[in-house]
Amino acid sequence: MAEKPIRFGIIGCADIARKLSRAITLAPNAELSAVASRSLDKASAFAKANNFPPSAKIYGSYEDLLDDPEIDAVYVPLPTSLHVRWACLVAQKKKHILLEKPVGLNVTELDKIVEACEANGVQIMDGTMWVHNPRTHKMKEFLNDKERFGELKNFANLRFWLGIGHRPREKSKNWMHSCFTFAADEDFLKNDIRVKSDLDALGALGDAGWYGIRSILWAVDYELPKTVTALPGAVLNEAGVILSCGAALHWEDGKVATFHCSFLAHLTMDITAIGTAGTLHLNDFIIPFGEKEASFTTVSKSGFTDLVTGWVPVPSQHTVTTDLPQEACMVSEFARLVGNIKATGAKPDPKWPSISRKTQLILDAVTTSIAQGSKPVEI
Amino acid sequence: MAEKPIRFGIIGCADIARKLSRAITLAPNAELSAVASRSLDKASAFAKANNFPPSAKIYGSYEDLLDDPEIDAVYVPLPTSLHVRWACLVAQKKKHILLEKPVGLNVTELDKIVEACEANGVQIMDGTMWVHNPRTHKMKEFLNDKERFGELKNFANLRFWLGIGHRPREKSKNWMHSCFTFAADEDFLKNDIRVKSDLDALGALGDAGWYGIRSILWAVDYELPKTVTALPGAVLNEAGVILSCGAALHWEDGKVATFHCSFLAHLTMDITAIGTAGTLHLNDFIIPFGEKEASFTTVSKSGFTDLVTGWVPVPSQHTVTTDLPQEACMVSEFARLVGNIKATGAKPDPKWPSISRKTQLILDAVTTSIAQGSKPVEI
Repeated sequence: MAEKPIRFGIIGCADIARKLSRAITLAPNAELSAVASRSLDKASAFAKANNFPPSAKIYGSYEDLLDDPEIDAVYVPLPTSLHVRWACLVAQKKKHILLEKPVGLNVTELDKIVEACEANGVQIMDGTMWVHNPRTHKMKEFLNDKERFGELKNFANLRFWLGIGHRPREKSKNWMHSCFTFAADEDFLKNDIRVKSDLDALGALGDAGWYGIRSILWAVDYELPKTVTALPGAVLNEAGVILSCGAALHWEDGKVATFHCSFLAHLTMDITAIGTAGTLHLNDFIIPFGEKEASFTTVSKSGFTDLVTGWVPVPSQHTVTTDLPQEACMVSEFARLVGNIKATGAKPDPKWPSISRKTQLILDAVTTSIAQGSKPVEI
Repeated sequence: MAEKPIRFGIIGCADIARKLSRAITLAPNAELSAVASRSLDKASAFAKANNFPPSAKIYGSYEDLLDDPEIDAVYVPLPTSLHVRWACLVAQKKKHILLEKPVGLNVTELDKIVEACEANGVQIMDGTMWVHNPRTHKMKEFLNDKERFGELKNFANLRFWLGIGHRPREKSKNWMHSCFTFAADEDFLKNDIRVKSDLDALGALGDAGWYGIRSILWAVDYELPKTVTALPGAVLNEAGVILSCGAALHWEDGKVATFHCSFLAHLTMDITAIGTAGTLHLNDFIIPFGEKEASFTTVSKSGFTDLVTGWVPVPSQHTVTTDLPQEACMVSEFARLVGNIKATGAKPDPKWPSISRKTQLILDAVTTSIAQGSKPVEI
């Protein structure tokens, strides 16, 4: 069934919208139809700089774009503090929403947005690109493979370290670590919206920690942990915005995961996932080193040589090529869902708001735990 | 000054002693002179199986070996619970000590051993092999390079997250993560000395966590952290021996490090060290994948392409070759120090007991924090 491409409008000319404009152009089932800024000149310059087609409409207000009946979906790259207001309005205008992350300042805000989407029958998806990379699907195949990665056996040992639980009877245990850091410059740390308490108030946790949290949830099939405990050493700026922090997540069946996020350390984006039978590593999970191919490393059932002087087997690298960059894969998947809804009256896919919500829920727990001096927060 | 090789005796035929026997054979300034077991047959079989020279002496008791005036140094691979007794006796017999890790059940035990060594003028070094790999020296050059890795600037922000400290004024922050896990089989988890409360009572923390702790101290030039906080989710066996745990270390100047160790997850041995200007990664820090060469990855001052679709620069891999395997480098360095003492009456090098002690101190703090339900423990 050949369908018309989904017509995208963009409200706000954030830097990230440049990348998304190209992604919409590249996605075969999407087209760049309009851009709005509070300034018509700015919108016009943005459209020109980002190769919008001549047919694209330029708006000097977000409302005008939302009133355009020829727009199917809206990409919202506005500061987090504006999400609840504008995303709800997008939904009320019956337009599908591709919403930049973090989706809200807290889960209550997201719930309002999701409620508006459900009431209006529109799809919502957050702008987490890496989960759409074909590499990510290949990595998940590894994590789901009991032979190569191992099992997530239950053993109710979680509270044993507190002295109030059962002693473990089974031997398996999964562990995962994720981090995303980058070294922001003086200008960023002074002026960027991500260090402002009235804009992207979740700071490094919302901007960088979002990915670590998402990667952990992704690895465990989005099973929520039982508790979230902030790690010591969180750094906040004068306005109380998080510049660096981390947390440990743990599940009742014994799984443990930690993540670290920071604006204050060199660019690093790692996943290490350890099962009972195998280990997965990669160091570019959010933005692959290059667009056209991306790699990860796995090793299964490895042990040592007789005298413990080497590994058998050693890890092997897997490279996955992609025609479309991951952000265009994201746009394409989102447009596919929107196309289905338009063509068949299908219901929006609840998976996407559900995983946004779980990510935000953990984010909220981390901020609570930091505020409470690293007390464990129950989910 | 050509000197005679240092004559090594080994007390106990532990599995690890096979590796060390070969290392002593390979080290040009060391020779295998004797082995002792509580059983003469066992010692004899060990010597035969491990290519001891015909001149090597076989003893049916540890004491007899220690009384041999033709032994300069003794390698002690006995279970941790026996260290304080035997290492003190080795020192009293004026023999230098290469002591398997963990060095003691706690720092008090180590202090007794070190005291005995000092009183008798003998060198002590623990059996941590990886720090002697030429790769490790190359990695340290990277970590010490302000251009490539960045600075460890002070900013007294540590307690800010508790709401009682200063707000940070400087932007740098170092972060590090290390882990060592391996999936022990049923037999190990039932019978190995490392799961027995009367033998290697520190379990996975002593056997695997030792390395993570050492790697963190190594990276920060052995500066002790201010606090150590166990991560949630430690697993203990029926006898109370740790099978899996982790901790977060933090320093008053804002550095943070975490480590994880386990007998319950697939073989993994990572270091990730993140400075303000660069990142170091390796996945085989304790036992390199192969003997003859070992690699690590670094990337400095990396950022993104214009549209944030790739990295510039991407990480690069560094490979360091070595003629001697790392355990032979360790033996050789230890024998060099012993040779110096013998030839010139030099004092034993205090660096080695000092870094053993710091490692043990953190180990003790982790066990205390676990026992106290993850309360931060001051060092």
